[in-house]
Amino acid sequence: METNPYNNRVNGGSAIPSRVSRKTKPDNTIVSINDVQVGGSEIIVIAGPCAVESRLQLFETARLVKAGGARILRGGAFKPRSSPYNFQGLGEEGLKLLAMIREETGLPIVTEVMDTRQIELVASYADMIQIGSRNMQNYPLLKEAGMCRKPVLLKRGMMATIEEYLLAAEYILNQGNDQVILCERGIRTFEPSTRNTLDLSAVPMLKRLSHLPVIVDPSHGTGLRWMVPALAKAAVAVGADGLIMEVHYKPEEALCDGYQSLSVDEFARLMSDLNKIARAVGREISVPKPSTV
Amino acid sequence: METNPYNNRVNGGSAIPSRVSRKTKPDNTIVSINDVQVGGSEIIVIAGPCAVESRLQLFETARLVKAGGARILRGGAFKPRSSPYNFQGLGEEGLKLLAMIREETGLPIVTEVMDTRQIELVASYADMIQIGSRNMQNYPLLKEAGMCRKPVLLKRGMMATIEEYLLAAEYILNQGNDQVILCERGIRTFEPSTRNTLDLSAVPMLKRLSHLPVIVDPSHGTGLRWMVPALAKAAVAVGADGLIMEVHYKPEEALCDGYQSLSVDEFARLMSDLNKIARAVGREISVPKPSTV
Amino acid sequence: METNPYNNRVNGGSAIPSRVSRKTKPDNTIVSINDVQVGGSEIIVIAGPCAVESRLQLFETARLVKAGGARILRGGAFKPRSSPYNFQGLGEEGLKLLAMIREETGLPIVTEVMDTRQIELVASYADMIQIGSRNMQNYPLLKEAGMCRKPVLLKRGMMATIEEYLLAAEYILNQGNDQVILCERGIRTFEPSTRNTLDLSAVPMLKRLSHLPVIVDPSHGTGLRWMVPALAKAAVAVGADGLIMEVHYKPEEALCDGYQSLSVDEFARLMSDLNKIARAVGREISVPKPSTV
Amino acid sequence: METNPYNNRVNGGSAIPSRVSRKTKPDNTIVSINDVQVGGSEIIVIAGPCAVESRLQLFETARLVKAGGARILRGGAFKPRSSPYNFQGLGEEGLKLLAMIREETGLPIVTEVMDTRQIELVASYADMIQIGSRNMQNYPLLKEAGMCRKPVLLKRGMMATIEEYLLAAEYILNQGNDQVILCERGIRTFEPSTRNTLDLSAVPMLKRLSHLPVIVDPSHGTGLRWMVPALAKAAVAVGADGLIMEVHYKPEEALCDGYQSLSVDEFARLMSDLNKIARAVGREISVPKPSTV
Repeated sequence: METNPYNNRVNGGSAIPSRVSRKTKPDNTIVSINDVQVGGSEIIVIAGPCAVESRLQLFETARLVKAGGARILRGGAFKPRSSPYNFQGLGEEGLKLLAMIREETGLPIVTEVMDTRQIELVASYADMIQIGSRNMQNYPLLKEAGMCRKPVLLKRGMMATIEEYLLAAEYILNQGNDQVILCERGIRTFEPSTRNTLDLSAVPMLKRLSHLPVIVDPSHGTGLRWMVPALAKAAVAVGADGLIMEVHYKPEEALCDGYQSLSVDEFARLMSDLNKIARAVGREISVPKPSTV
Repeated sequence: METNPYNNRVNGGSAIPSRVSRKTKPDNTIVSINDVQVGGSEIIVIAGPCAVESRLQLFETARLVKAGGARILRGGAFKPRSSPYNFQGLGEEGLKLLAMIREETGLPIVTEVMDTRQIELVASYADMIQIGSRNMQNYPLLKEAGMCRKPVLLKRGMMATIEEYLLAAEYILNQGNDQVILCERGIRTFEPSTRNTLDLSAVPMLKRLSHLPVIVDPSHGTGLRWMVPALAKAAVAVGADGLIMEVHYKPEEALCDGYQSLSVDEFARLMSDLNKIARAVGREISVPKPSTV
Repeated sequence: METNPYNNRVNGGSAIPSRVSRKTKPDNTIVSINDVQVGGSEIIVIAGPCAVESRLQLFETARLVKAGGARILRGGAFKPRSSPYNFQGLGEEGLKLLAMIREETGLPIVTEVMDTRQIELVASYADMIQIGSRNMQNYPLLKEAGMCRKPVLLKRGMMATIEEYLLAAEYILNQGNDQVILCERGIRTFEPSTRNTLDLSAVPMLKRLSHLPVIVDPSHGTGLRWMVPALAKAAVAVGADGLIMEVHYKPEEALCDGYQSLSVDEFARLMSDLNKIARAVGREISVPKPSTV
Repeated sequence: METNPYNNRVNGGSAIPSRVSRKTKPDNTIVSINDVQVGGSEIIVIAGPCAVESRLQLFETARLVKAGGARILRGGAFKPRSSPYNFQGLGEEGLKLLAMIREETGLPIVTEVMDTRQIELVASYADMIQIGSRNMQNYPLLKEAGMCRKPVLLKRGMMATIEEYLLAAEYILNQGNDQVILCERGIRTFEPSTRNTLDLSAVPMLKRLSHLPVIVDPSHGTGLRWMVPALAKAAVAVGADGLIMEVHYKPEEALCDGYQSLSVDEFARLMSDLNKIARAVGREISVPKPSTV
């Protein structure tokens, strides 16, 4: 047989650093966010608005995504925006609203941190901190995340190779924190019809090379609300341990990324469809329940 | 709401030429290859070796993929190879073997054509002709394919945008042949760990913009045998109308692309898994049957 | 010292096929198009319209680019166009006009061939045949070009690696024709502000790996008329053996690519600037002379 | 004439934010680093080692690059490295060495800052602070750089479009600091033979859209020592206001990026060649002088 030219040092595993490598730790790592476990047989859905805008917006969205089956609430307080003139988030006020909604709904919260000076503050409110794509190689931030005692959701850089991504995660583990969730969220390619190109092959590749759980973000991966459900289903079929999706109770009024946010109804319908795929691949997803708030 | 910057002239549909456009023809086009219909509720699997190598290899592989549920046999007689020193295919001898195996198995055959001078020859043997990625913008070849009376499997160029891809299909339809199947087979990106990056978002995008059926090639899309099943499942979940996969009865002895070819056993297991996903998305796939040859 | 991770099998040369390799033939190959030699110390400029439109357009443009210092005339008779509804070229009528203008101006002509069935025809009129980007991996066409007795201008595919490009050239040399000129014309990247990204590092890389001459096409490389002069100067500075540029006597009336075509005045000014750069790198370029037609 | 499809909202200028835009300020901005002015007719060369390693290494390299014509000394004290196990820089000790060498040579120094908590420290030693590619969208860092009273060298992200790059610069100007130098340093593409693809078209594009000076980094842009001179010459020809290059007095012993660092002799020869190109485009470059230390 021909030698496989694509079986290179990356997917052959020799370039993968030790702490994240499955060679070092063959068993899956389970990341616990309060009572929610990511990396086991249950597929975990994280949902919520792009940005925290108001108590009403956050509460209404949280209540409804919980009813739809979401297990963790997402929402940005500090927002990385390409332009300095776009809405930059509510800051600590947003963190306080997230904490308040956690008390009301019981959903753990995940929110982004962008600055080493804010980690202590963000970690004091959040149940899991997120390091976004633009900061995937912000090494001081990765080191601080490694020293904080909270789980970390580390999103793949939009132009990061699998090797660079795992090296970035290694920075966190190297500080003693192995509670890291990886997240494929679309890479930058030449194709202009979608916001990014969702690289679903990254899911089996990351899971083969590393013991860390891997989730998928079809909202940023496509940038198109109508396309989110199809890619969410594909993500479950390809083997993802979870999904993170933007949902807004009134997408047309969102201050940020409304065009890629699902409405609450769309989310509920999607969860029902995802459940069928999950079962087809031998996993489960939380069944939508009547609102319990 | 912010305007969606990704809702551009491509996915908004205004750049899409008329004959391929769903605006012109809202209903799905069904492509018929003998008695096999692509584009309806059944998900069609095309399988077979990269290249036709010998009667034994082709017959053994064909018999077994048919038993596994494949509905169409693939196999290359004229092979586009990056190097002039690689195996270039058996030529007409390969076409004759394909026709012979069709008689024995009843499976329709699809094979690639690379040269306008060969179209008549290839179309006289094949039930569907394939235009490969490297020839997606070979306009004389597209025009000839449009004039031939056989269905055409047009693979996406590895660096073609959705808009360019649909324009290439338009060349075929513009000659009066609407029996065209589109095929996402991976695009070229910066990521080196896979052969290409399979762009599964292309499936819902193409189906929204066009009435033509869309299938997926996870073999070339990943270039890694172990990864083919995961991406095949994702392709079914995302809404593909079919799959085309490389299967070889002895992958380790294949003259071409053995590293991305499934063994017959792997293929049979995969078909069973795909069937579950197909049902989860409200479609069906042919159930593996005992060998009938 | 760290091992250079970028000193891989491509630029280390081990992946380069034998006939194009500088290891096999250390001296530069000189390609002769009638009395014009490409690959020596003179930098050769090829200029003319994107497409042959009429005798008047071609003659006026040819006369003026010759006066500006162009040594070879370009012009398309068979045009590869993304859409079937765009102007497809004048066909053989265009070839006849090119031959007529050669008689009048003495400039050798280069024109594109897209179809194996046309090679004999095109080669009977042209002094050099061009294989365009979209056909860089059209292997039957490469083989025919290798068998024809005319020099070949082989443009890099917009998606082709250096390795694939040299393998494509090898197809031509392997048929006994070593009169091949390579041409960097921009690759496809994520950047939308230019038509392509002109990869000027390809020039020193190709010249290090191969003995074939290398020219640059800043018209397609940028897609922006105002940017062509800056990149043309850079191409001379980086070590190109020549340039191919689109020039039109009335760009605003061009049927094809007018937005990237220089006017005749812009071309004349540019040639004067290029001459200074050529001398700064120890080469020469033909000095603009008064019109001699 | 056809509408130019590449004359989009970016290069048409409508997407460019106000403070960086040439529409707002038609004249070139001159950035002053002590007595060195970037953006005028003189082309400024910044040279030095990737990382500060020792007093001897830094002093020897600085003395020799000054003799070769460099006007500013570069050297990293805090190094962003893909792997946590690579040399991370000397930290403040490196800053102290840089300041000491400035006293001895008179060369202003530029060095990278990666962390908002370090900006005050770095700015207290450096004459210009650098924000590296990986931090181009680190918005808190950009804001701090905007508030500091030192010139800023902002490198283009390897994945950043021209539009995103100018938006990142706008974050700095929006805080009241207009002393910003832009730097093209290679973008990530599919081509594996070079470390990045140096996008020289970015130079005329940035200079057309913005009043800020633009320099080029051929060391990171190519990752290959032997290729640096060719691309440096092209950068001067294309219109860059300066260059930043890695030079090491003993490249084979460098702790970081030795494979892309010029030796001092190579640097001196290159400066002489660059001088000729600079004059050919109507600019000047500091003439190498005998060592004055």
